[in-house]
Amino acid sequence: MSSSPIYIETASAPTNIATIKYWGKADAKWNTPINDSVSVTLDQADLKAVTTAAASLSFEKDRLWLNGVEEEGAAENKRFRACVDGVMALATDKVDPKTGEVLVKKEDWKKMHVHISSYNTFPTAAGLASSAAGYAALVAAMMFLVGAKEEYPGQFSTIARQGSGSACRSLYGGFVAWRKGGDKPDWSDSMAQQVADENHWPEIRAVIMVVSDEKKDTSSTSGMSTSVATSELLKHRAANVVSKRMEAIEKAFLAKDFESFGQLTMADSNQFHATCLDTYPPIFYMNDVSKSIIRILHAYNAWAGELRSAYTYDAGPNAVIFTLDKYVVEVGALMLHYYPEFGENYISNPEFGTKIKEFKLDEGLLEATKKTGRTPVAGQVKMMYYTKSGPGPQLLTDQILNLDPKTGLNTYKP
Amino acid sequence: MSSSPIYIETASAPTNIATIKYWGKADAKWNTPINDSVSVTLDQADLKAVTTAAASLSFEKDRLWLNGVEEEGAAENKRFRACVDGVMALATDKVDPKTGEVLVKKEDWKKMHVHISSYNTFPTAAGLASSAAGYAALVAAMMFLVGAKEEYPGQFSTIARQGSGSACRSLYGGFVAWRKGGDKPDWSDSMAQQVADENHWPEIRAVIMVVSDEKKDTSSTSGMSTSVATSELLKHRAANVVSKRMEAIEKAFLAKDFESFGQLTMADSNQFHATCLDTYPPIFYMNDVSKSIIRILHAYNAWAGELRSAYTYDAGPNAVIFTLDKYVVEVGALMLHYYPEFGENYISNPEFGTKIKEFKLDEGLLEATKKTGRTPVAGQVKMMYYTKSGPGPQLLTDQILNLDPKTGLNTYKP
Repeated sequence: MSSSPIYIETASAPTNIATIKYWGKADAKWNTPINDSVSVTLDQADLKAVTTAAASLSFEKDRLWLNGVEEEGAAENKRFRACVDGVMALATDKVDPKTGEVLVKKEDWKKMHVHISSYNTFPTAAGLASSAAGYAALVAAMMFLVGAKEEYPGQFSTIARQGSGSACRSLYGGFVAWRKGGDKPDWSDSMAQQVADENHWPEIRAVIMVVSDEKKDTSSTSGMSTSVATSELLKHRAANVVSKRMEAIEKAFLAKDFESFGQLTMADSNQFHATCLDTYPPIFYMNDVSKSIIRILHAYNAWAGELRSAYTYDAGPNAVIFTLDKYVVEVGALMLHYYPEFGENYISNPEFGTKIKEFKLDEGLLEATKKTGRTPVAGQVKMMYYTKSGPGPQLLTDQILNLDPKTGLNTYKP
Repeated sequence: MSSSPIYIETASAPTNIATIKYWGKADAKWNTPINDSVSVTLDQADLKAVTTAAASLSFEKDRLWLNGVEEEGAAENKRFRACVDGVMALATDKVDPKTGEVLVKKEDWKKMHVHISSYNTFPTAAGLASSAAGYAALVAAMMFLVGAKEEYPGQFSTIARQGSGSACRSLYGGFVAWRKGGDKPDWSDSMAQQVADENHWPEIRAVIMVVSDEKKDTSSTSGMSTSVATSELLKHRAANVVSKRMEAIEKAFLAKDFESFGQLTMADSNQFHATCLDTYPPIFYMNDVSKSIIRILHAYNAWAGELRSAYTYDAGPNAVIFTLDKYVVEVGALMLHYYPEFGENYISNPEFGTKIKEFKLDEGLLEATKKTGRTPVAGQVKMMYYTKSGPGPQLLTDQILNLDPKTGLNTYKP
């Protein structure tokens, strides 16, 4: 083995939950969408991807470890290549901060091979946008490693987008839009744009109900492709509905208008799932448990006489429930009542767990929600996360290295 | 009590299952739809409404019995009135066939009060379009009673429509369209039209899976009203999708093209449910059992390499599965495998029951459908009906009188 130095950096990146949904690719090669979308970036305390990237002339080939397991042939994967090579092309000289000596010339980075090791702090199978966080963390770790600089704002997000569409939105904190672009032939205008950062509306909270599912339906990629080919309602949605909703929800978020924000979020989640159902053959992501949560939350809002909770569902049965700080304990307690504790670590945040167990739900609320037909049954929900909005990717200096700095080999064990 | 004679007739009427769905009223007063629809009229052997209508000067008021129970105040019900008065307005003289004597002058019918007694041969709560059959049978019994004559073809269906929208389609056998109309201010052009009678495509079969449901969701009337008010996808569907589908499915039915007929039927069922989901708050009619049937049937068709089965769901979780004579035993056996017998009379037709129990399902088919994730569980389906396409309303001369011809009082006991 050569004695060439190993350069190494670690980054974390958040997951994000769309409130106006992306479904359907305009261009498969560039991985661009048929409509704009916008999402809330979630706090990295509970849910994040952590990725270490190393580069060295001594590496014989590009290698990738996911959750501690090497992915054979990953280096030839189109998505992986787009992210690694995309960031490499924006590399800058690496300079020793003490001596000013140029350690790596910007054009020399691409002579090196890379080793990447990444893991998620949440179950990959749980359907919590693990690929968005994962590709955002890959781009971020590579950025930090090679000191990449954008040629125009949002360029990094165009790279992350080629890994996984919604990953582009995970490059910013707060409330983040993905503008579909399409005016430029290389789709370099299909990028993320921060609408508001995570400090703009600090009262926003999210409770995530991880719903058990017997069978994972169609993958997103294949589902989107079938939907674009067969759903007339999706075409109409993309062409005529989404832009109005984008304008309205960005306005609502900036005005901290939870009533409008929540209603648009719920309506758009339902419309997304409606276009899945309009697909031939139809795609089902929500199950009866998902729907019971929807019914309970509408009954809750109706009982409250105001909108206190708003659900949204991605391509899976899990509910993400947005609410405000002042109602989050009530929302959590309501969910815990109908979806009782099931196994250890059922509630991600112990402090939140204590609060919602102690909270006394209003009798009228219980009466109102009981009319939905739901009776408390444990086991249909696997876990509850409590979280809020958070920042974009973070450089984790000198910590959590998933690769051995001496050998460049994976050290992460799940 | 006066000694005035009691005139009495009994009629039966079929239920019908739409293959292009009606959802949303254009005019609430006239009960007219925002789009055309078309349905298969089902055979009355298993599923029908039987209605006796009697008229006499000796009756003190209009009275109605449903399934043996008198409905108080029913005579003031707008829907009931529209049907009874609508037919009365088209009455003709009643002439003694032997003597030629005029027993009732056409203008005298409306001086009499009516007694109506109606029952369904299937559970009203099962969500099998009981109101369509019921109002069609009411109109038919009244027609026969007062010897009503249409002023233009389809006029009776405009009357039945005011009882229950889809009842207009139950006035004909076979494959029946409901043209939405709207060119005339009184909506007299919103009527049913027979596309093909029940003898045109005699190989058509239907297997109905009555799916258990914990909670009946929104009623059709209130659901439609919310959908029209809130779903942009429904507007698009009504304005831009349905007319193309109507043309295509009528062509397919006339050509006996099961591949096209079935695909359009499934796509339209899914699109209808998609617009329900796009409603705010969303409406769910299908449940996880309904969806498992959908998955199995798509897997079955894929395994067969041709379209052998086509599902459709109305405003409830029950599946109506269309197939052809040559595949109906296979379809029935497949359903029985995954939704095993549950209680007595699980299969409506004993002969069909014997056949499907004896049928040996192909191992490859079982393998292919197992991949949907479904495992056989009894109790999720309450009953299986086997039926075919059938004729419109029938005059039941001298039989099944639900009213005593001497007193005009109900004699039907459930």
